[in-house]
Amino acid sequence: GVDKKILVIPGDGIGQEVTAWGQKVLETIAVNYKHNFVFEEGIMGHVAIEATGNPLPDETLDKARKSDAILFGAIGHAKYDNDPTLKVRPEQGLLKIRKELGLYANLRPIKLFDELLEASSIKPEILRGADILFFRELTGDVYFGEKKRSEDRNTASDLMIYHRYEVERIARKAYEAARNRRKKLCSVDKANVLESSRLWREVVQEIAKEYPDVETEHMFIDNAAMQLVKDPKRFDVVLTANLFGDILTDEASQIAGSMGMLASASVGDSTGFYEPIHGSAHDIAGKGIANPLASILSAALMLDISFGLKTESLRVIKAVEATLKQGFRTMDIANKHTENHFVMGTDAMGAKVLENLS
Amino acid sequence: GVDKKILVIPGDGIGQEVTAWGQKVLETIAVNYKHNFVFEEGIMGHVAIEATGNPLPDETLDKARKSDAILFGAIGHAKYDNDPTLKVRPEQGLLKIRKELGLYANLRPIKLFDELLEASSIKPEILRGADILFFRELTGDVYFGEKKRSEDRNTASDLMIYHRYEVERIARKAYEAARNRRKKLCSVDKANVLESSRLWREVVQEIAKEYPDVETEHMFIDNAAMQLVKDPKRFDVVLTANLFGDILTDEASQIAGSMGMLASASVGDSTGFYEPIHGSAHDIAGKGIANPLASILSAALMLDISFGLKTESLRVIKAVEATLKQGFRTMDIANKHTENHFVMGTDAMGAKVLENLS
Ligand SMILES: CC(C)[C@H](C(=O)O)[C@@H](O)C(=O)O
Ligand SMILES: CC(C)[C@H](C(=O)O)[C@@H](O)C(=O)O
Repeated sequence: GVDKKILVIPGDGIGQEVTAWGQKVLETIAVNYKHNFVFEEGIMGHVAIEATGNPLPDETLDKARKSDAILFGAIGHAKYDNDPTLKVRPEQGLLKIRKELGLYANLRPIKLFDELLEASSIKPEILRGADILFFRELTGDVYFGEKKRSEDRNTASDLMIYHRYEVERIARKAYEAARNRRKKLCSVDKANVLESSRLWREVVQEIAKEYPDVETEHMFIDNAAMQLVKDPKRFDVVLTANLFGDILTDEASQIAGSMGMLASASVGDSTGFYEPIHGSAHDIAGKGIANPLASILSAALMLDISFGLKTESLRVIKAVEATLKQGFRTMDIANKHTENHFVMGTDAMGAKVLENLS
Repeated sequence: GVDKKILVIPGDGIGQEVTAWGQKVLETIAVNYKHNFVFEEGIMGHVAIEATGNPLPDETLDKARKSDAILFGAIGHAKYDNDPTLKVRPEQGLLKIRKELGLYANLRPIKLFDELLEASSIKPEILRGADILFFRELTGDVYFGEKKRSEDRNTASDLMIYHRYEVERIARKAYEAARNRRKKLCSVDKANVLESSRLWREVVQEIAKEYPDVETEHMFIDNAAMQLVKDPKRFDVVLTANLFGDILTDEASQIAGSMGMLASASVGDSTGFYEPIHGSAHDIAGKGIANPLASILSAALMLDISFGLKTESLRVIKAVEATLKQGFRTMDIANKHTENHFVMGTDAMGAKVLENLS
């Protein structure tokens, strides 16, 4: 067995409810496969602001640096959304940890479980067989460029900026992945309007030459947002910038039936960071109805990517699949038109996956 | 009858093929309703670069200023998409005319013709009844902020910037429209990360107070991109910035069955500018298979918005509807599973609409 230190950061909203299940799955895997996973907990986001005034306390960052992997929940709170003038904001914690840990590549696999073919708003014949791996750049772009507000507060700006090396390193990661998949890479930008996108496209065109076995396509973001709904099967690996990736992957959640199914891995210079794509979802937080599968599948990604435990990772995915086959559903993936669906809350659903793990 | 001067700018790619049909529809309406429409033609985009070296020649801009409305086709060419280092680019023409004419509000109505319920990749029960009016800000944002490239060419940036007055004026237009519709407005931003979005949200919150009869919702762009596919019926008026609007409206084309169905109106300080949402589509340009309905529906928008000719505008929409009812389809909206569909090219389809107009 392996020895690993895992930091768990539930964060805000439904993060508090679902992350426990990602952790329980890791605990069960550790027992079943004789690994030694040691867990610590950290605070971040609104809960951290309430406790310390800081959305990412130094203590959490320290623990993160010392861990082998991080399981994160979600961040955000209605209070800040309703008051754009607040200076200290939960999201700053997430952005800072991404930057500090050098998590420049955010991998978001979009794959539909057969059992959920009917859960989506998109037609089953359009979805069947869709399998996309997004590489979203995570530490550059308008997210991290200089932000300004004029003294009279009437003008505000954010700098959308990219450096060559930032594009190079994520492009290489995406091409490596494409090589092990269907050998197609689609780079998404807005090079017909943006200078930062023109740099992006130039660099991707260069890196493409190192991977002649991979077919490269360049697509404008507006077209990509359309094609994703129209014909998701045309995509294999999608490589894109931070902002465009944020938008496209949320949209792509409909390809997987629900946002509640989507896990992500952020990797880069050191420790890997695993989180559901869904946010804190304040509208359903505290009700015990959130889907724990995205957190559980994030744990599966951790086993595979950070620990190289492919068998264990697959075991988790199979347990999720089995649970869905048995007809168990949280609200977000329930289909009113199907009989034999048992709609349940977060904890009941998580418990079913644990049963299927043993 | 009314006297109007209309500038026609076919532009690039399929713009050359479809815009003729928008114009023919306007000519037929003029005859049928005894109006006097005088047409001029202008060049813009790749064709203008080829002819004059300038994507928007002064002559075209002059003609535009002197016209009562402009019917535009599309812009763009593969040559520039493949070479991001080219300095003079077709899109500069479109951006410049938007700025010079002060076309700050881009209206993009998304409504599905019943006949096309099956043409979309989205399930009919999700689409039925969807009816969205987008207000996309068109002369600000990262489109027009300063663009920079470092001397070593390794760093590139675009400034995402908004001024209070820019948000105010389009917000008011959107609220006025919401008042005459279902009284719901959703403002889309990324206020949890972007300072320009926080200004956007602050201003919309203020303007909202002037329209207490309209229900306001604020949504993050990533969530909006998801909701648009998941539940398009939840939206009435959507108000958003230039870049986000570009992305969301292309995505929304799937709600209307095809991009080939979507018209838009850009209005502001003076002359109105009418164009399909689809681009130059180099992959199908010159083949005579492009859908002329978006250009024809753009002409309908012109009749309504710039000339106040509501009866005539409705007449055009009815003719399009009748054509679809008769089973006539261009490739993009044909449904292979339906009998009694007659798939035809641009000119045959345009001719059918003209027949239905008489
Ligand atoms: C919460 C927010 C800052 C974040 C982002 O925009 O990156 C989230 O939407 C995500 O996709 O991880
Ligand atoms: C061609 C391009 C500059 C343009 C834009 O991005 O505004 C187009 O996509 C549009 O939506 O009108």
